[in-house]
Amino acid sequence: MRLLIDGKWVDKPAVWWNDDTNDVQMIDQRKIPFKTEIVTMETFRETSKAIEKMVIRGAPSIGAAAAYGITQAVFEFHNKANFHDNLKEAYNTLLASRPTAVDLKHGLNKIIHLKPLSPDVALKAAKKFADSIAYEGFLIGKFGKKLISQGTNVLTHCHTGALALVDHGSALAPLIQAWNNDGVRFHVYVDETRPRIQGRITSWELQLAGINNTVICDNVSGSLMAQGKIDMIILGADRVTKNGDIANKIGTYNLAVLAKHHNIPFYTAFPSSTFDVNTESGDKIVIEERSSSEVMTLQGLTIDQGTIETINLYSQNTKFFNPAFDVTPSSLITGYITPKGILKASELEKKLLSN
Amino acid sequence: MRLLIDGKWVDKPAVWWNDDTNDVQMIDQRKIPFKTEIVTMETFRETSKAIEKMVIRGAPSIGAAAAYGITQAVFEFHNKANFHDNLKEAYNTLLASRPTAVDLKHGLNKIIHLKPLSPDVALKAAKKFADSIAYEGFLIGKFGKKLISQGTNVLTHCHTGALALVDHGSALAPLIQAWNNDGVRFHVYVDETRPRIQGRITSWELQLAGINNTVICDNVSGSLMAQGKIDMIILGADRVTKNGDIANKIGTYNLAVLAKHHNIPFYTAFPSSTFDVNTESGDKIVIEERSSSEVMTLQGLTIDQGTIETINLYSQNTKFFNPAFDVTPSSLITGYITPKGILKASELEKKLLSN
Repeated sequence: MRLLIDGKWVDKPAVWWNDDTNDVQMIDQRKIPFKTEIVTMETFRETSKAIEKMVIRGAPSIGAAAAYGITQAVFEFHNKANFHDNLKEAYNTLLASRPTAVDLKHGLNKIIHLKPLSPDVALKAAKKFADSIAYEGFLIGKFGKKLISQGTNVLTHCHTGALALVDHGSALAPLIQAWNNDGVRFHVYVDETRPRIQGRITSWELQLAGINNTVICDNVSGSLMAQGKIDMIILGADRVTKNGDIANKIGTYNLAVLAKHHNIPFYTAFPSSTFDVNTESGDKIVIEERSSSEVMTLQGLTIDQGTIETINLYSQNTKFFNPAFDVTPSSLITGYITPKGILKASELEKKLLSN
Repeated sequence: MRLLIDGKWVDKPAVWWNDDTNDVQMIDQRKIPFKTEIVTMETFRETSKAIEKMVIRGAPSIGAAAAYGITQAVFEFHNKANFHDNLKEAYNTLLASRPTAVDLKHGLNKIIHLKPLSPDVALKAAKKFADSIAYEGFLIGKFGKKLISQGTNVLTHCHTGALALVDHGSALAPLIQAWNNDGVRFHVYVDETRPRIQGRITSWELQLAGINNTVICDNVSGSLMAQGKIDMIILGADRVTKNGDIANKIGTYNLAVLAKHHNIPFYTAFPSSTFDVNTESGDKIVIEERSSSEVMTLQGLTIDQGTIETINLYSQNTKFFNPAFDVTPSSLITGYITPKGILKASELEKKLLSN
């Protein structure tokens, strides 16, 4: 993605290997959207800490960071005694850096099972893995951009950009390619996306690409649709089940029902790793319930002056229900924008599991 | 409403006349939900300031405060020279304390046109006016409570409680009466209601009444409905047009569409002054667009330590669209809970305009 760092435009993914120093570098996502800073992780321990502290966010980007992190461990231990024990410990450290992250484990396993496990072999595989994620984003953009025509009003939800998917993004990739490569001019409404307000990251990525965009509270979408001001919804997916149901950021289902009522096309864009052929349908997905503090307080939220420590918005005895995701049935989804093209639910298994 | 002040339970409306001191008193709504404080306004100037500084909020409560405020001016000026000039100035001061507040003007006019305009006559009329608003809340509760049965899961949006309607509230009145008077036990989901997070006031009022309630982000409603966890929606209205369309807090329309999709009853509760027979239908309502800063920053928001001054959640160049209300057509509304009973759209004019 194109980034403005210290007044200069540079092209960087979310995480990469610095060949000059053999370090892992990444954009510090904790400072976005206020500061764009590149940070350097000199050891797998630092990379693990970065994942834990959410310097890097977004499952696919975390997967790439994990692959690079375990590669750092291979560099550190390969010519020492107890290589395998040390590597196993590094593996466990990295694996524990975020709970329930399938992509993280997948990134580690891409490296750990290689034979011979030399620094060169590991690094080549880690780069290939990270590049393949980014390339999927590129392909999503290439296929999806055809949906965007001049003057379209798009609505999106949560953050689905380059920072989350190593590069290019999922739902944002079609928008950025339509704008940059094809010169299509349009406008994007960006849902704020409570509780974590990821809309501000989305708006920031769109601003960097020069794309007209307007942030709205999540409550505004329906009235915009009723007024004919939304032509299309594109958002991401956290998991896509065999039958085409999707789990995605809470609020996705609300938009899908509203889109149906107003006869507005509703697209989800995602890389192939998001497709979970082993889960039959959305009702089998267990939705993660997150801490009340995400709604009750603004703790840990990045602001222009740093990070918020302890702002309580609610009185002490208030109870909350804070599910991270909801499930949208395939019947409400117009199409699936994937690295294999824009698919129907019935095509997902055949197309996404072929090579 | 029952309030806990300094460890003691008291029963107080949002605003009242203190007969011992001839002062206006009110609950300082700026401190809710963190502190419950009674503040005293010794002159109409102080009452005007209180309205301006949003010590008192909610159009009907502001109307009552205005009636009491102009009564304070009658007390101050009635035996002085230039009574009418002074009173006119007081009227203008109070009228300017909040922009576009129909109820405010209505409260002033209830007093200013009285003849003779003595302190006693003014005070009697002001009390009657405030009491009549509160009584409408009581009647809304009396009729609406029949809708709530044991074990019901209710969803509500924004704040529609006693603080806004002098006493009893609109959409909250049926819930509080069902719980307190009839012993019905149920549960309320409270929409956070971005951008101004009025859900925390609603949750606080429900907590005071002892009613089980859970705050959710506005994004959560759809998935709860899909899971069968919402049996009924009750919320307020800011304006009800002749045909039964309503303008209400942004996000109301989203809920109405979601309720329709899930076949869930959708009720709006409001006092008779909210019914606007002169506006034919909802498409004639001009929706107020409010400042971007309400979404972009947390400026002015009450927190436990005081009031937030300058927290920017978004980067400087972000654009926002922040409409205060949306319009919900009567076709999506199951019933209208009013002081004249639970009505259909076709009954509003006849019932609400009769005496």
